[in-house]
Amino acid sequence: MPIVTVIGDGQLARMMQTEAIELGQSIKLLAGSRDSSAAQVCHDIVIGDYRVWEDVERAVQGAHAVTFDHEHVPTEFLNRLSGMGYSVQPQPAALLYAQDKLLMRQRLEKMGAPVPEYSAIESVEEALAFHDRVDGAVCLKARRGGYDGHGVWFPGSREDLRELVSELLGQSVPLMAERKVALVRELSAMCARTPSGQVAAWPVLESVQRDGICVEAICPAPGLSDDLAAQARDLSVKVATELGVTGALAVELFETTDEAGNPQIFVNELAMRPHNTGHWSQDGCETSQFEQHLRAVADLPLGSTRPTAPVTVMVNTLGGEEAPDSPIAYRFAEVWRRFPSVKIHWYGKEWRPGRKLGHVNLCGYDATAEGIAETRKIANLAAEYIVNGKWADGYVGKPENS
Amino acid sequence: MPIVTVIGDGQLARMMQTEAIELGQSIKLLAGSRDSSAAQVCHDIVIGDYRVWEDVERAVQGAHAVTFDHEHVPTEFLNRLSGMGYSVQPQPAALLYAQDKLLMRQRLEKMGAPVPEYSAIESVEEALAFHDRVDGAVCLKARRGGYDGHGVWFPGSREDLRELVSELLGQSVPLMAERKVALVRELSAMCARTPSGQVAAWPVLESVQRDGICVEAICPAPGLSDDLAAQARDLSVKVATELGVTGALAVELFETTDEAGNPQIFVNELAMRPHNTGHWSQDGCETSQFEQHLRAVADLPLGSTRPTAPVTVMVNTLGGEEAPDSPIAYRFAEVWRRFPSVKIHWYGKEWRPGRKLGHVNLCGYDATAEGIAETRKIANLAAEYIVNGKWADGYVGKPENS
Ligand SMILES: Nc1ncnc2c1ncn2[C@@H]1O[C@H](COP(=O)(O)OP(=O)(O)OP(=O)(O)O)[C@@H](O)[C@H]1O
Ligand SMILES: Nc1ncnc2c1ncn2[C@@H]1O[C@H](COP(=O)(O)OP(=O)(O)OP(=O)(O)O)[C@@H](O)[C@H]1O
Ligand SMILES: [Mg+2]
Ligand SMILES: [Mg+2]
Repeated sequence: MPIVTVIGDGQLARMMQTEAIELGQSIKLLAGSRDSSAAQVCHDIVIGDYRVWEDVERAVQGAHAVTFDHEHVPTEFLNRLSGMGYSVQPQPAALLYAQDKLLMRQRLEKMGAPVPEYSAIESVEEALAFHDRVDGAVCLKARRGGYDGHGVWFPGSREDLRELVSELLGQSVPLMAERKVALVRELSAMCARTPSGQVAAWPVLESVQRDGICVEAICPAPGLSDDLAAQARDLSVKVATELGVTGALAVELFETTDEAGNPQIFVNELAMRPHNTGHWSQDGCETSQFEQHLRAVADLPLGSTRPTAPVTVMVNTLGGEEAPDSPIAYRFAEVWRRFPSVKIHWYGKEWRPGRKLGHVNLCGYDATAEGIAETRKIANLAAEYIVNGKWADGYVGKPENS
Repeated sequence: MPIVTVIGDGQLARMMQTEAIELGQSIKLLAGSRDSSAAQVCHDIVIGDYRVWEDVERAVQGAHAVTFDHEHVPTEFLNRLSGMGYSVQPQPAALLYAQDKLLMRQRLEKMGAPVPEYSAIESVEEALAFHDRVDGAVCLKARRGGYDGHGVWFPGSREDLRELVSELLGQSVPLMAERKVALVRELSAMCARTPSGQVAAWPVLESVQRDGICVEAICPAPGLSDDLAAQARDLSVKVATELGVTGALAVELFETTDEAGNPQIFVNELAMRPHNTGHWSQDGCETSQFEQHLRAVADLPLGSTRPTAPVTVMVNTLGGEEAPDSPIAYRFAEVWRRFPSVKIHWYGKEWRPGRKLGHVNLCGYDATAEGIAETRKIANLAAEYIVNGKWADGYVGKPENS
């Protein structure tokens, strides 16, 4: 069975290991430290830095495929590995468009995908000109290295934009700007593709963001018309195919309305790896995104993307402002006692405010608006309890022996 | 989060690790070798022998709970660990009844559970007397250490029995005999129990055995009356409660007919750990037996045992007479190409004839007799292809580009 080198040691790599175990694959990890999320649960590990060539080189030895849990590996390293004959999945030529938001926009526009109005920003003047062009509705972005909203800014005024751009350019941060879209909501269209060209798409889902971080996902997206769902799904398949993406692909989408008031989608960004909005698939789908990614990068046929429940809700557990007093196992117990169907996924990371420490999934068997609302309510209550050690609805537990 | 020491390095321990990763638990393994099934995928490992006290002692250091993937750890070690204050789950007083088939029969009889007629066998004379009592329908069993039908004999004649018993007693194998039951089929009633006394039962399923080895499981058991299903389920809950079992419990059952021709069940044996007949739960149930076992041994509340499909079929892939020519990844690919819903679980073990190398699960969404037959057919075809590299139904694959 193939040995897959995973560059990265976060929760995505950790959850790949879960599936690798069942598939009989061996994961070899390039991890920053022994106690990182993924390194805790893998046996074959190289401790090193993905920005240091020698470390990368050590980690890929013997690998049948090389893949990633983030997009920050220097492009030159990826090209070098490819040149040495390693099977780098996704390939550097595709990954580039997940690494650089400006190149991504340009490439998407070229293939006719709907994108918000945008511009490269290399000077304060360009920024101000763009500001005037979009009537001040500016979203400024670092082209590279962003995650969870780090590297995304919404300057409140022309003056703020001027200051921000001059500061960032002073730090040599490559920038772009795009129109701030009047969001109805955000969607995610995910699929996976093999080097041989097989593509399998998951149902299109709704993702809820707070401060640039995904906090919740509902699959399938409630109330999405068949038309728009098909459009979003086809778009993800087209992106995967035209860019030659391999492994899991998430196409983050904005849903907004056109002038006539009809729903309309724009592409926000691409992620070429398992993605936070795909975690629902661990408990709500015949093939999880982590299994699919591992199958895809090894060029094995893809699995069924049939959902196993009418609706599945995922809620992230982000570290709260203060670490709760109660031990984590106690909080899990309380959640499970109240809601035996809640599935908890925990990343083994140290608590830190705002940090993604885990997530919960919950399948719902009632796909009416009320049913979905109820499933979301329970999943959110569970996640909040894990974070705060308090029930947001004031629940005080069952009396003993009831 | 709790550290759980697992004594044993086979596929059951390996699949516990899969769930431990998602639960955020840390598994510490006592493994016979570095390349054993479970040791391949764990990081915290003690290499040693479960029959050597010093090795066991090293493996349990720092553990919040100690559990097993087999029942062969010497009872005296378990008692010693308990005495030292370790949380041994299941506790030695319960595990005893999974370790010794005679004590199990006696204990089950005492609680009023239906068991086949049986007898301790300490001499050839006792064996022959039992033979005459049951009109030659004798099943001879080693009291301890059996698995996969090793330690189970069906002597063809009085003379065979005499020879067998005298040989085994000569080797100091402790024996018992029981009536050979006229099986209609075999069932399995599984549940899990926590030290605090919570019990959750899975649906009762049918298991198919060949040469004493489980080859297939169908959940729920097709055509089982509600009455008999409830009787079997209640029996498993009663056994768990009365024996104080903790973790997963499998009650292996014989279905036969009474004199009036009505279906009737007898207990065959107990396993106090995740069990081959429970593998379906990995893909067909909200909570898998491995997750449930880890929750139970840490005394955390149990998860929902709701099935996610009307029927789930599990088929073991047992090593064939000869290792097939094609690489295993190629065989997986062929199976997935033809049947994208088949879930393969692979144990990372070396091929050996008859050895359990993995299993496949398949959910079916049509619970009619024909629907179940079709699901079973596909799961069996897939498993056979993995074993032999040949389609048992003569399928020759799709032409290229179809
Ligand atoms: N043009 C825009 N108009 C309105 N909102 C935007 C726009 N661009 C980004 N956002 C908001 O900011 C969030 C984060 O933006 P983006 O996805 O580009 O950042 P990121 O840091 O790369 O995040 P990720 O963790 O998804 O990689 C979006 O999900 C959306 O809520
Ligand atoms: N009394 C009996 N009458 C008829 N068949 C029996 C009897 N006892 C055992 N068998 C057959 O032999 C199989 C194996 O028996 P048993 O479960 O006792 O053995 P084991 O080696 O402990 O197996 P396991 O791997 O399940 O622990 C049973 O599943 C059944 O098919
Ligand atoms: Mg984003
Ligand atoms: Mg048995």
